[in-house]
Amino acid sequence: MHIMIKKSDNRNPFNKRNGKKITTPEFLEQIRKGNIAFLSKAITLIESLNESDKIEASNLLHACLPYANKSIRIGITGVPGVGKSTFIESFGTHLTSLGKKVAVLAVDPSSSINKGSILGDKTRMEKLVNDKNAFIRPSPAGGSLGGVAKNTKEAIILCEAAGFDIILIETVGVGQSETLVHNMVDFFLLLKVAGTGDELQGIKRGIIEMADSIVINKADGENVKNAEFAKKEFERALHLYPQKENKWTPKVTTCSSLQNEGIENIWTMIQEFLKITKTKNWFQKNRNQQNKNWLIQSINQHLQDDFYNNKKVTQELEKYLVRVEKQDITPSEASKYLIDFYKKND
Amino acid sequence: MHIMIKKSDNRNPFNKRNGKKITTPEFLEQIRKGNIAFLSKAITLIESLNESDKIEASNLLHACLPYANKSIRIGITGVPGVGKSTFIESFGTHLTSLGKKVAVLAVDPSSSINKGSILGDKTRMEKLVNDKNAFIRPSPAGGSLGGVAKNTKEAIILCEAAGFDIILIETVGVGQSETLVHNMVDFFLLLKVAGTGDELQGIKRGIIEMADSIVINKADGENVKNAEFAKKEFERALHLYPQKENKWTPKVTTCSSLQNEGIENIWTMIQEFLKITKTKNWFQKNRNQQNKNWLIQSINQHLQDDFYNNKKVTQELEKYLVRVEKQDITPSEASKYLIDFYKKND
Repeated sequence: MHIMIKKSDNRNPFNKRNGKKITTPEFLEQIRKGNIAFLSKAITLIESLNESDKIEASNLLHACLPYANKSIRIGITGVPGVGKSTFIESFGTHLTSLGKKVAVLAVDPSSSINKGSILGDKTRMEKLVNDKNAFIRPSPAGGSLGGVAKNTKEAIILCEAAGFDIILIETVGVGQSETLVHNMVDFFLLLKVAGTGDELQGIKRGIIEMADSIVINKADGENVKNAEFAKKEFERALHLYPQKENKWTPKVTTCSSLQNEGIENIWTMIQEFLKITKTKNWFQKNRNQQNKNWLIQSINQHLQDDFYNNKKVTQELEKYLVRVEKQDITPSEASKYLIDFYKKND
Repeated sequence: MHIMIKKSDNRNPFNKRNGKKITTPEFLEQIRKGNIAFLSKAITLIESLNESDKIEASNLLHACLPYANKSIRIGITGVPGVGKSTFIESFGTHLTSLGKKVAVLAVDPSSSINKGSILGDKTRMEKLVNDKNAFIRPSPAGGSLGGVAKNTKEAIILCEAAGFDIILIETVGVGQSETLVHNMVDFFLLLKVAGTGDELQGIKRGIIEMADSIVINKADGENVKNAEFAKKEFERALHLYPQKENKWTPKVTTCSSLQNEGIENIWTMIQEFLKITKTKNWFQKNRNQQNKNWLIQSINQHLQDDFYNNKKVTQELEKYLVRVEKQDITPSEASKYLIDFYKKND
């Protein structure tokens, strides 16, 4: 789907239709109708670094906001090789077979769904790509992780306004990307695979605490035994952590994405999670907290953008970089001076 | 050493001497004389969050700057259990035996030298603690990793002004702390131990690229064979990475901190590193780049501090947090408004 958009980029720019600029109400109307082509264009708009695009993107997001917030947001992480794309293909197809509309977004450029797009040929999620109730969107190629995370959060809003019931957000966990994804989802699923050394040992610090479920993939054929063993190991490890604020006890389960085994159970488990956390209002509390964090992150990012996009400031900064290099001023002194300068030279 | 300081904190505050405030010239004079008690007080001063202390700390750093920059800064990282304290004890004692003055700083609260201080009894570096040519300083207990990193960089300046030839900076690698330490040292040493599963498998992404040397510790007794095997494994792994800009090829070596074996070699290797990188001026280029990065980080931190310490701004922020929670405004819109508000309400 995204490949199609790529091809047509030049002839039909993302913010135009038949050569005419798409207005915010027009965008909103089409998105609300579930028009995938417009949803794609809208996501490209929010990813644009162009200043006038940014204003349009902001208006569009504002317009979509009342229709957002109604999906279930699920984060999926795991190192390369655990079978994330096959899992998403299998899990996503199960969800669409239940009548759900599923959107898949990726947070890092090395994610499996991006690989498909980079290779330029068929993605690894053949079924889901051709499923009219699914929408797959790779993350933008460039930009900082923070920038990509911001775009992804905004893409969630757009997908929700377009009526998607379930948003799957994939990350391969480069740097802090797992934390970023954890901070934008309702349910965080850690995908593992047994028998390849990708067990407890190699697990990244902090990730166990974040997981609402650990799913051991590739539990098929000769690997079933390994998977069952790994399951017990992880269950034991999870016992070491204090109970979560939301009273949910993280579950360990096995599945075979290839043979579609154990996939239904995962959706059942997530529904159970929703039941528990929604009764106790923790679900909404978590989203509120995420929105607050989002504002703080947005402020911090905008502060820096505003500072470094100020030409007078950057000219002055050049001088002070030299002075700091020569060590005739400390970085702390220099930054204090530069911030005063920034506030006076708006 | 730090324990002594802790005890006397109340009776003899860090910025006073016999009840009288220590002036910047007095601080500088004593630090330049290598007075450890004053150096400790000075580091406590730069860690202080008190506004008037911050001004004094800034003045003191400025005064120390011309005398800084002359040491060799070595970062030491490794997971708990690799024997970091024993290694630092052994390596540090070797350096002081060569007539070097050695300072040891820690970046995260869970580092081995802090554990000593938390336990309140003898630290694990008995010899080094009692060595008049060594200075050991744990990292401050609280604060963000970024804050601790800032303090550590400033502590390096103070230690250098006090005439320390070699600064060892220890980190256990929680979150981004390895990257932070890598950005403040000349040489980055990754400590590993063989035969415990802490081999390639469990290695954190990106750390191999940062290491100038991988030292396999505990190469003694029955573990010698494992260590030699691990050495070969790491050498093979290092071959996969492109050559570094500074033309240094990272070296893998084994040692036994307990039996003081292989410790001399490590210092010889570091001297070789210095010879190569200093001839090609890469050593200074790296420090210049680190200073520039330090300024950028300092600006970003000061920008946030200035914003969130503005009372009018935080009152307005409270209102907008509620609006974002209610979703009648996007975080992006709210942050744009708040930054304009901030610049108008200085």
